Amino acid sequence: MIDQKNEYSIKEAFIFSQRMALLSKALWKSVEKDWQHWIKPFDLNINEHHILWIAHHLKGVSISEIAKYGVMHVSTAFNFSKKLEERGLLVFSKKEDDKRNTYVEITPKGEETFIQIMETFDPNTNAVFKGALAIHDFYGKFPDAMEIITILRQIYGKDFIDTFEKSFEHIDQEFTEIENKVAKK
Amino acid sequence: MIDQKNEYSIKEAFIFSQRMALLSKALWKSVEKDWQHWIKPFDLNINEHHILWIAHHLKGVSISEIAKYGVMHVSTAFNFSKKLEERGLLVFSKKEDDKRNTYVEITPKGEETFIQIMETFDPNTNAVFKGALAIHDFYGKFPDAMEIITILRQIYGKDFIDTFEKSFEHIDQEFTEIENKVAKK
Repeated sequence: MIDQKNEYSIKEAFIFSQRMALLSKALWKSVEKDWQHWIKPFDLNINEHHILWIAHHLKGVSISEIAKYGVMHVSTAFNFSKKLEERGLLVFSKKEDDKRNTYVEITPKGEETFIQIMETFDPNTNAVFKGALAIHDFYGKFPDAMEIITILRQIYGKDFIDTFEKSFEHIDQEFTEIENKVAKK
Repeated sequence: MIDQKNEYSIKEAFIFSQRMALLSKALWKSVEKDWQHWIKPFDLNINEHHILWIAHHLKGVSISEIAKYGVMHVSTAFNFSKKLEERGLLVFSKKEDDKRNTYVEITPKGEETFIQIMETFDPNTNAVFKGALAIHDFYGKFPDAMEIITILRQIYGKDFIDTFEKSFEHIDQEFTEIENKVAKK
């Protein structure tokens, strides 16, 4: 059975999507474990840290944007944002020209926590990083995951990937500042 | 800060591992949603279906092997296997030469359910598949996800990936049989 328009067989489609399902499960389970371990000393869960991440990179972001860029339900985005607000890491606000949406902003205490977490990152406790070192040794750089980005761009849209890439440009700049700070110590 | 031995900077390490974390979260959330939707009519969850998958491809598999190849805790593997046993989809047994481990085997009813699920697979409801069609149109084939496989091989070991690949060779053969059956209908 060949889909004439797209020229793929149902077998090919099935095997590809099943491969991706099992690979992404295995990848995510490893990422999830390391991520939880990394942020545990700060008493945050992955969604909370992800919300702080988004609030840090996108100044003044709405709950629905947090849900979109954080790949979580709006209710999850709201509930965990609320918990971060109670801890003084975020503040909620309304915009003058948009009374319907709730916006969040990271507080100075939130920024401080976020930077502290970044500073405690240790690549040697990160399995995906260590797993990619063989590729780095071989090619001289880490994988760019272009296929995954292409697939996610189709699923979540151009905006999602553009915002994702912008946040990494932002980290690049920031990290240089943190490195300089650490180097001076 | 350059790690002299491996020639990567901490910034590079941080950015790579964070990119992979966020990408794998977004990928998994999409996979999880479609997987749940696909197996819902059969009243199974992802771990249960994954256990059936493993029991189908590896004849006579231990609970610890299910945990390993299914990327789940041993207790999760045991509890969900138990539920499948209660539904008559698996049977538990002990081996003559290995009384300490529990082995599971898929029953004829389990096989029937497993094949039925395969037959209801519709690529058009699978976002990762649809997301990869642009790559297929461009390159003439679906991504092989080699970078991910390399990383997972380092994390979970050679055995894990070899078994993974063998199960897909197995599916390839089986699917041809199912296609022939469907074509005759």
